[in-house]
Amino acid sequence: MDEQITSYLENNRELHLKQMIEFLSIPSISSDSTHKPDVRKAAEWLANDLENGGLENVQILETAGHPVVYADYLRAEGKPTVLCYGHYDVQPVDPIDQWHTDPFKPEIKDNIIYSRGSSDDKGQVFMLAKAAESILAVKEELPVNIKFCFEGEEEIGSAHLDDFVDTHLDLLQGDVLLVSDTTMIGINQPAVSYGLRGLCGLEVHLRGPKGDLHSGVYGGAVQNTLHAMVELLATLHDKDGKIAVDGFYDGVEELTEEEKNTCEKISDDEALRKELDVDTLVGEPGYSTTARIWARPTVELNGVFGGFQGEGLKTVIPSTATAKITCRLVPNQDPAVIGALMNKHLKKHLPAGVKLDIRLMDHAEPFVMPLDHPALKAAGAALKDAYHVDPIFSRQGGSVPIVNTFHDKLGLAPVLMGFGLDTENFHAPNEHFHLVNFDRGLKALIDFLNFLPEQK
Amino acid sequence: MDEQITSYLENNRELHLKQMIEFLSIPSISSDSTHKPDVRKAAEWLANDLENGGLENVQILETAGHPVVYADYLRAEGKPTVLCYGHYDVQPVDPIDQWHTDPFKPEIKDNIIYSRGSSDDKGQVFMLAKAAESILAVKEELPVNIKFCFEGEEEIGSAHLDDFVDTHLDLLQGDVLLVSDTTMIGINQPAVSYGLRGLCGLEVHLRGPKGDLHSGVYGGAVQNTLHAMVELLATLHDKDGKIAVDGFYDGVEELTEEEKNTCEKISDDEALRKELDVDTLVGEPGYSTTARIWARPTVELNGVFGGFQGEGLKTVIPSTATAKITCRLVPNQDPAVIGALMNKHLKKHLPAGVKLDIRLMDHAEPFVMPLDHPALKAAGAALKDAYHVDPIFSRQGGSVPIVNTFHDKLGLAPVLMGFGLDTENFHAPNEHFHLVNFDRGLKALIDFLNFLPEQK
Repeated sequence: MDEQITSYLENNRELHLKQMIEFLSIPSISSDSTHKPDVRKAAEWLANDLENGGLENVQILETAGHPVVYADYLRAEGKPTVLCYGHYDVQPVDPIDQWHTDPFKPEIKDNIIYSRGSSDDKGQVFMLAKAAESILAVKEELPVNIKFCFEGEEEIGSAHLDDFVDTHLDLLQGDVLLVSDTTMIGINQPAVSYGLRGLCGLEVHLRGPKGDLHSGVYGGAVQNTLHAMVELLATLHDKDGKIAVDGFYDGVEELTEEEKNTCEKISDDEALRKELDVDTLVGEPGYSTTARIWARPTVELNGVFGGFQGEGLKTVIPSTATAKITCRLVPNQDPAVIGALMNKHLKKHLPAGVKLDIRLMDHAEPFVMPLDHPALKAAGAALKDAYHVDPIFSRQGGSVPIVNTFHDKLGLAPVLMGFGLDTENFHAPNEHFHLVNFDRGLKALIDFLNFLPEQK
Repeated sequence: MDEQITSYLENNRELHLKQMIEFLSIPSISSDSTHKPDVRKAAEWLANDLENGGLENVQILETAGHPVVYADYLRAEGKPTVLCYGHYDVQPVDPIDQWHTDPFKPEIKDNIIYSRGSSDDKGQVFMLAKAAESILAVKEELPVNIKFCFEGEEEIGSAHLDDFVDTHLDLLQGDVLLVSDTTMIGINQPAVSYGLRGLCGLEVHLRGPKGDLHSGVYGGAVQNTLHAMVELLATLHDKDGKIAVDGFYDGVEELTEEEKNTCEKISDDEALRKELDVDTLVGEPGYSTTARIWARPTVELNGVFGGFQGEGLKTVIPSTATAKITCRLVPNQDPAVIGALMNKHLKKHLPAGVKLDIRLMDHAEPFVMPLDHPALKAAGAALKDAYHVDPIFSRQGGSVPIVNTFHDKLGLAPVLMGFGLDTENFHAPNEHFHLVNFDRGLKALIDFLNFLPEQK
């Protein structure tokens, strides 16, 4: 790290924290319409801060919901363009009585800042802004082109982001998507994510007799819709827990030895078992826990329901039963193909006496970036420089819809480099953010911008 | 049938219908607290009618809920005592806009009376009262001792009947329980029920991880509680639909050839299939549909639920899942033994990674009366005399808790001889009752009381 910048960061740390506290103090709860003016106030604060930091073309762009804050620096001719994504809206604060501090009066104690949004994601949005500002302040230019796209609706499902990207395709063109909204493996173990599982969702509906029947009067005479449902759903996995749908694993790539080793290193079954309060972990045989999450597809039942749910007994044979299912997908699995395979399997195994209706729901493409991609190499080098340890190149078990949006619509190469910790209570009372990761993370972001154009 | 009584019934038919209309006009909806005074009004109307009819010791007996109307005639020394059970409360009338008449302004059209309670069960309660009244009016004495016990809470689960019987054991002693609250096989095919299936209810609860988990972040690493539930529930039946619980069928008696023939004669699979709007009927192989309902045990899922039930998708791995199960039992099956077998089976087949909690719920003993019981012979002869066809001796697939109450606590021999039809919309809009069954049924009830003391 450049000494001038190191000094600049040290000299301005107090000012930066003061600014961050100001930003965090705005209760930008996107789900609560009474906070709509606060969400806009946070957008304005951020726009103003980017303007003051030397960014150009600063705009508050309207959507059908909360606005997007945009800013850029496009003077690095011939250099890559990095689109930085983050969100300035926050989760609600309920249950408020469980907070030890006021969620919107940030307090620093033992180098930890307590505030709603400190970890998710205003603290990290602020770091992205300060990274660019700091280089500009010291060097008067940036080593790459940069665009900021900070939305105000992530906590309500990014309802208008797809539309926003569609209507601003030219404005948002670039090479790399930098997202600081993920977590590290541990406080001294940074990580950069290079892959996400995809998703294929479906709703399965069975209809038996035309209405609920008395189980005494009709029990034994007709198919019980719930029997049919449990029998059908039980066919989705074999005895070992592998998916029993024909063709489901076709083309699924095995992990490399290096990836397997990383997964085994990271897997801490005992800790996870305790965290989740289960007697034993369960999953596809032959893979470490982390490998199962990162790189193996699953078929998960998210909801099953039919018949009586009240207290006591009601002796009905239910007319209908429903199952909500999501398949998590890995590279070389096409959500549409998987949807068709599931459809075929369910039809083939349908018990007699019920009608089947399948509704295909959300789709998301899985993807993995090649580990030798310049952006990943730059991220790895930057994290090593800031944290003095080798970062973990990780994959995520979930889909991140906004990453899919930018990847699919704009072809950006995603780099998920976040500085939060899983233990920092985002989405819960007493959210906090370790300032050691503010300092190191800010350095890593600056390094990343500096290292990126050097990578091939 | 005695000519004097025949004439009496003909001469008084208009009066009887007028009285029945008066009784049906009282909106005695037991589930609706705003109708509490109406329920009492119906009890008072009934008590008054019994008093006028020459019954003795007429009382409105309080319970913790709606009252019981009691009356008796105990002057037939050395003759059997018949306890007549029925209920004077009715179902609610929603959806009221689907009624073609006012549910509490009875109208007669084409010899059918339209009114809430006409079929279930005020019309039939009224017939029981008129049967005794008519004999008394003509003969000035009854051929048997008779007790009436008409409750006002059947439509809300007979909440206080058990307590009532416990505290009135002496008052309610008798030999035969006559219940007119069941249906005929068809308008020209009377039936008398001589057996009921029993019941063993249980609630099965599975707990996996301590809270709902994100199916992306954890999917593949831990047992999905719903997978465990469907796998577990699917073990309850084998591929042919037979119950796969060890020992479940131990001691179950096969039907006699005569019973098998009756069941085959009554089974109308095509009609039932159409009525229920299913492609095919499904059940234990080797038995006719009626035999499966009357005389074969079942394990029915009445409710299964866990995870997300809203619109769209929510990608959770649910923490808990619940199943509500009732086993229908036949003679020689003990509900407590079956509960223990189910318990053992569920524990034995429990998938890894979840905890199981089983709660035993309602129990009811199955029972079948010997077909040569004097009360059944009297009922058969009475129905044949009134309808000019051989009645069907049938069994019921359901449990009738009140029958169990009187059978188990007082040792009464139950005769279920009802005059409603399944098509008469009890529990639905436009309830009605065919007056042809008022006339014939009243004759049959009078015959029954006359024939009973002659049977050995």
